[in-house]
Amino acid sequence: MNNIPATIADFEEYARRTMSPGAFGFYIGGADSEVTLRRNLEAYNNLLLRPKVMVDVENVTVATTILGEKISSPICVAPTAYHALAHHDGEKATAKACATVGTCFCQSTNSNFTMEQVASSVPKEALRWFQIYVQEEEDVTRKLVKDCEKAGFKALVVTLDRPRLGKRLHVLRSGFTLPKHLSRANFEEDKENDGSDSYYHGEMYPGMTWKDIKFLKAITKLPIVVKGIFREEDAKLAIQHGVNGIIVSNHGGRQLDSCPATIEILPEIIAACKGSRTEVYVDGGIRTGVDVFKALAIGAQAVFIGRPVLWGLAYQGENGVKQVLNMLNYDFRLAMTLAGCANVQEIDRSFIAPAERYSFSRTLARL
Amino acid sequence: MNNIPATIADFEEYARRTMSPGAFGFYIGGADSEVTLRRNLEAYNNLLLRPKVMVDVENVTVATTILGEKISSPICVAPTAYHALAHHDGEKATAKACATVGTCFCQSTNSNFTMEQVASSVPKEALRWFQIYVQEEEDVTRKLVKDCEKAGFKALVVTLDRPRLGKRLHVLRSGFTLPKHLSRANFEEDKENDGSDSYYHGEMYPGMTWKDIKFLKAITKLPIVVKGIFREEDAKLAIQHGVNGIIVSNHGGRQLDSCPATIEILPEIIAACKGSRTEVYVDGGIRTGVDVFKALAIGAQAVFIGRPVLWGLAYQGENGVKQVLNMLNYDFRLAMTLAGCANVQEIDRSFIAPAERYSFSRTLARL
Amino acid sequence: MNNIPATIADFEEYARRTMSPGAFGFYIGGADSEVTLRRNLEAYNNLLLRPKVMVDVENVTVATTILGEKISSPICVAPTAYHALAHHDGEKATAKACATVGTCFCQSTNSNFTMEQVASSVPKEALRWFQIYVQEEEDVTRKLVKDCEKAGFKALVVTLDRPRLGKRLHVLRSGFTLPKHLSRANFEEDKENDGSDSYYHGEMYPGMTWKDIKFLKAITKLPIVVKGIFREEDAKLAIQHGVNGIIVSNHGGRQLDSCPATIEILPEIIAACKGSRTEVYVDGGIRTGVDVFKALAIGAQAVFIGRPVLWGLAYQGENGVKQVLNMLNYDFRLAMTLAGCANVQEIDRSFIAPAERYSFSRTLARL
Amino acid sequence: MNNIPATIADFEEYARRTMSPGAFGFYIGGADSEVTLRRNLEAYNNLLLRPKVMVDVENVTVATTILGEKISSPICVAPTAYHALAHHDGEKATAKACATVGTCFCQSTNSNFTMEQVASSVPKEALRWFQIYVQEEEDVTRKLVKDCEKAGFKALVVTLDRPRLGKRLHVLRSGFTLPKHLSRANFEEDKENDGSDSYYHGEMYPGMTWKDIKFLKAITKLPIVVKGIFREEDAKLAIQHGVNGIIVSNHGGRQLDSCPATIEILPEIIAACKGSRTEVYVDGGIRTGVDVFKALAIGAQAVFIGRPVLWGLAYQGENGVKQVLNMLNYDFRLAMTLAGCANVQEIDRSFIAPAERYSFSRTLARL
Ligand SMILES: Cc1cc2nc3c(=O)[nH]c(=O)nc-3n(C[C@H](O)[C@H](O)[C@H](O)COP(=O)(O)O)c2cc1C
Ligand SMILES: Cc1cc2nc3c(=O)[nH]c(=O)nc-3n(C[C@H](O)[C@H](O)[C@H](O)COP(=O)(O)O)c2cc1C
Ligand SMILES: Cc1cc2nc3c(=O)[nH]c(=O)nc-3n(C[C@H](O)[C@H](O)[C@H](O)COP(=O)(O)O)c2cc1C
Ligand SMILES: Cc1cc2nc3c(=O)[nH]c(=O)nc-3n(C[C@H](O)[C@H](O)[C@H](O)COP(=O)(O)O)c2cc1C
Repeated sequence: MNNIPATIADFEEYARRTMSPGAFGFYIGGADSEVTLRRNLEAYNNLLLRPKVMVDVENVTVATTILGEKISSPICVAPTAYHALAHHDGEKATAKACATVGTCFCQSTNSNFTMEQVASSVPKEALRWFQIYVQEEEDVTRKLVKDCEKAGFKALVVTLDRPRLGKRLHVLRSGFTLPKHLSRANFEEDKENDGSDSYYHGEMYPGMTWKDIKFLKAITKLPIVVKGIFREEDAKLAIQHGVNGIIVSNHGGRQLDSCPATIEILPEIIAACKGSRTEVYVDGGIRTGVDVFKALAIGAQAVFIGRPVLWGLAYQGENGVKQVLNMLNYDFRLAMTLAGCANVQEIDRSFIAPAERYSFSRTLARL
Repeated sequence: MNNIPATIADFEEYARRTMSPGAFGFYIGGADSEVTLRRNLEAYNNLLLRPKVMVDVENVTVATTILGEKISSPICVAPTAYHALAHHDGEKATAKACATVGTCFCQSTNSNFTMEQVASSVPKEALRWFQIYVQEEEDVTRKLVKDCEKAGFKALVVTLDRPRLGKRLHVLRSGFTLPKHLSRANFEEDKENDGSDSYYHGEMYPGMTWKDIKFLKAITKLPIVVKGIFREEDAKLAIQHGVNGIIVSNHGGRQLDSCPATIEILPEIIAACKGSRTEVYVDGGIRTGVDVFKALAIGAQAVFIGRPVLWGLAYQGENGVKQVLNMLNYDFRLAMTLAGCANVQEIDRSFIAPAERYSFSRTLARL
Repeated sequence: MNNIPATIADFEEYARRTMSPGAFGFYIGGADSEVTLRRNLEAYNNLLLRPKVMVDVENVTVATTILGEKISSPICVAPTAYHALAHHDGEKATAKACATVGTCFCQSTNSNFTMEQVASSVPKEALRWFQIYVQEEEDVTRKLVKDCEKAGFKALVVTLDRPRLGKRLHVLRSGFTLPKHLSRANFEEDKENDGSDSYYHGEMYPGMTWKDIKFLKAITKLPIVVKGIFREEDAKLAIQHGVNGIIVSNHGGRQLDSCPATIEILPEIIAACKGSRTEVYVDGGIRTGVDVFKALAIGAQAVFIGRPVLWGLAYQGENGVKQVLNMLNYDFRLAMTLAGCANVQEIDRSFIAPAERYSFSRTLARL
Repeated sequence: MNNIPATIADFEEYARRTMSPGAFGFYIGGADSEVTLRRNLEAYNNLLLRPKVMVDVENVTVATTILGEKISSPICVAPTAYHALAHHDGEKATAKACATVGTCFCQSTNSNFTMEQVASSVPKEALRWFQIYVQEEEDVTRKLVKDCEKAGFKALVVTLDRPRLGKRLHVLRSGFTLPKHLSRANFEEDKENDGSDSYYHGEMYPGMTWKDIKFLKAITKLPIVVKGIFREEDAKLAIQHGVNGIIVSNHGGRQLDSCPATIEILPEIIAACKGSRTEVYVDGGIRTGVDVFKALAIGAQAVFIGRPVLWGLAYQGENGVKQVLNMLNYDFRLAMTLAGCANVQEIDRSFIAPAERYSFSRTLARL
């Protein structure tokens, strides 16, 4: 019997057994009845694959780019809060693993280590993005952006889908709050976390509108990526406001429950961005190499993974994150091989089909 | 660990543990195999949300009106029988909670307290409606209507879907009857409940037809709302008979089993009422703020909740009902916030989509 | 707590607990993996009801006719083998219950009592049909038909869907055979059942074709009803061969597994019979009054129930069958009342809808 | 109680109880989350049968041909590796059972006995095919083909869907490797299996393309059958390259997960081959006679079964395989009888329908 994790679920299982229930619940939970959380995972099953055979797949490469920067595979790391709940090295460990593997790490505003700490733990050339919760007070936002530039982050990811916090039952039930020894390191005033309410208070800014994107563009040259777009109208507004990328996301099912799965929204956003130079990415529910393959076949430039990285951290810190990324990269390469694609450019729509395409009422009609 | 109820299911669970099984079964049960009862709940999952982002939702208000009267939120209380099974203050407690929260309380014909008792327990301006089972003997109906006017109720809700009682297995199996110390207070002869058969006998009137609406309109100036309409033809007849409102309802799945969910019937009735001044409401299976949001997005003016109020009563009487209403109002406001609506007028069809809209066979066709 | 059966499932549960496992398995089982058996039951859930309200349903009558004979309700008794496995009075008990209730009893070829025994146990005017397995030897068939006429049966039901016996796992696994003290009473040679193989041997006639219907019509004036038709082509052939009625049946899922549910086949057969004078009935999976209502709304003249009668027999013999029939009749009347139909002629297609009609993609399109 | 296996699941259950968990896991497992593995089985349920009645089915014959050779039934044996894991006589036992039953045995490249050993264990005329993994080194391939011709195999089955091995969790978890006393007998160098890595190393050739089919055709006159085609484009390429047959297969769900079920792909491939002389077969998930009937109704010339044969081997070696084949043949004949087909030529599309054909929204529309 072999105990090395063979799937993301194995890492998750390890985290479930070893983390404190409150912290694990904070990580794993979604909003309300978690309809969207489950849908993010299950929707992938409604897309089927159509392998091509007799293609030379001796040498398959998964390398690609985002916003012009090379990455070793299209599997990047989504911004998630409080990595130190899983491992004391927190975001530093995650950043290092990403650097070694050669993919993009997106740090959350709500990290337990500062941008500077994270930046200095990895080689300069390691690709890092920063996820920013724009703040009501322009000065606070301005400072975050400046810190970010200074620390060598290559893009700002503006999260749009959290004007207020979703209702997360795991957290309400466990009463989880950020442990005293941890803080939201990027905020001065939070350094003295008194353990009472740090989970809820803070950086909400329900008044944010497109004007805030204009403000950001005025104060920085960094490319802007928006995260959490659900409709084509909003995708078009994003393009009009000059954003460089869109992450199709529903915050891992943690905000408004009863939204579609992100992989379901992706085609609408891809369609809306056709002809523009805005890149489209997706996160949510990606757990296998086949999932990644499907997202790329729809047209995503890359994908971001949230929770799997946290399970890797809980498993073995930096080394665990590396294992998670390597496993997904390996499995993605295998999916390409078995589907008959030697590089990511070859992955196109012909390799996927809605399950309905195979309903007998359609297929028998051809006979 | 935190034991304050976080969902309606938590209140229900409390009631299940603390009420007598017979009374709880009477409350929770539906007719036959409860297909419709379950469908009322599950149908909501077939509607998905399409949030708009970058909307200023700093100040979100859920206030609205029904039949011209202001209510603090579109979540009203449906008529349900025998509140004293859950708490000795019965309908008085419910009415008080509604008055405090500022929403409409609809009292059932089969209440354990009289209209007068309920009326005198709340401020005069508290909005109350009365649900009437029209009686075969015109005089009995006439008396009910007069009592109702005297007690300051603002509308008559005529229930149409109960010519005879549905077959409710919980009650048949438990042999539940109304306990001796309780009565159907609005009926003189019932004041001496002998505990034998009060559940079944009584106010059935299977001969009721539209002529009875004419009769009601002849004897009162109160607005008339009909409850339990399943087809557009009947909605049109209702409009022709001058009713002021329609509650789309299947009696919480307690009458004819195998009917569609109410949220499924709602669009047909809304369409039939287009152009008229009849308001349309819906009840059945509403358990979250997101459910309310969906009903309003289809076009309901307001929603009514049945069982959740009974669980609140069982939990802590008046205070429990208040908690139930406040929770739903809070969650509804949160849903609006995360969907990008600052007031109920902004909630329109663009915010919802049938799950089928996101089937890959439709969405991939756009690429 | 009240132990009187409230649903057909309650009777079934009683039979499961009290019958020998082998006999119960013989009764309840279907062929192969019982896909069709389950489908017979579940397909009813895909039809929804559309009640009409404000109809005078003070007096609802369920009486109707089949082949011109009055029956007190459209719920008749399907032919099933070996009633003495459930109760020592066997088919005599069933026939008596049907006579009292006033509905049609269809006796199986494979009954444990002879036609004469059954006939003499009920009043002359009690409506009885005889289900015949046409035999390879014309003389045996001829004798069966003559006995049948003599015993006052009013129609011959020719079963078409059993050229060989389906593969029934319950029976294969239990090794069930007809107990020694019982026999297939209508066959001389079977009177001496030696308990070895009576279940399998016997009356199979895989060479039967439409010519055998011609033969039957040549030797008797009794109306002919065929049982087990799956396609419109065959329905049309049946009409061409002058049959008087068709029972849409899949033998209770006991013959070819993976066939559609009978309620799914019914519309095709009804459509094929339009314009002819052939009556169409249906059996299979009918367990509630609502099921009966749906079958009639599609256009069935009457329905036949198989297993529920056997559970009634196992419960209390004749009295148990009466309870089963009375319960279904009561529930069917209640369904009519709540749907707004005062007699069976009023039950039409407008009262039912496919569940798909209520899919939000259809209903929201109307707004 | 009767313990003779009555279904394929009974054989499987026996194997599960008696084989070593590692070997059983190697046999039963699929790739990744086994979506395709399950789909292979479940997709059959979406096809329903439409029996014809009143057909003379006294004499039903299941005999047919493949590539011009007579077989006693269209149920053939798919190539599966390492039969000696189930029974020490391995492929010899399987081949003998097939010879006795009169069907085609397809030996895997990865057999535990050599082609010669298998050939010499059965009568000369027994139909055998050889499944070949084309090797990177032309000489190795050439030798395999020559051995194959010498040993009297009648066709080469070229497997296309395994450029690399799928990710099979059962094997990863158990750490299963081929036991030391067994080898891949057709390969000289493997004769000395050291038990370390024989499962993974070896015959992968990810560079295989259609040129390799040309090569095969150049060196042998044996008919070529390709196995593992998923798209019509590839079926057409296969025809262009002169292949004689196509087995629609997804390797029993062991290669790329998330592919459609083979029975779902079959119609597309049949349609693509219309007009050509290429025969189309299917494997994957066939467990009952009804499944076989459906595949033939779509247009397959024959079907191949994989795992059921392994369960038969584990049950009683040669005798167990015979029982498996006889059971399936018996059940297939029964399905034909009950559907109203006296020989396989009569099985056509009219006998099957997509489940959707019976959706009430389609069927009620006809009334
Ligand atoms: C524990 C946790 C914390 C998160 N914190 C943030 C955050 O701080 N900022 C943000 O934009 N998204 C945050 N997200 C959302 C992720 O960026 C991402 O959208 C989501 O996790 C993707 O879904 P997945 O976990 O199924 O891969 C968080 C998600 C989780 C699970
Ligand atoms: C215990 C109980 C008693 C009810 N009594 C009445 C009643 O007296 N009059 C009436 O019109 N509806 C009655 N109803 C139906 C409700 O008004 C309402 O339609 C239903 O409860 C809404 O569904 P919900 O419980 O899922 O919210 C009753 C419902 C319940 C659960
Ligand atoms: C135990 C049993 C025995 C049956 N025997 C016969 C029979 O002798 N002749 C016949 O035509 N149908 C027979 N049937 C089929 C029934 O007539 C009828 O088609 C079926 O039971 C209807 O389905 P239901 O049991 O779900 O109501 C039998 C069914 C059962 C369950
Ligand atoms: C244990 C096992 C080993 C297999 N080995 C081979 C093989 O060596 N070559 C090959 O072409 N297919 C192989 N297959 C795939 C089978 O030929 C066939 O496609 C599959 O088993 C059919 O699905 P079924 O098992 O559901 O009947 C194997 C399948 C199994 C289960």
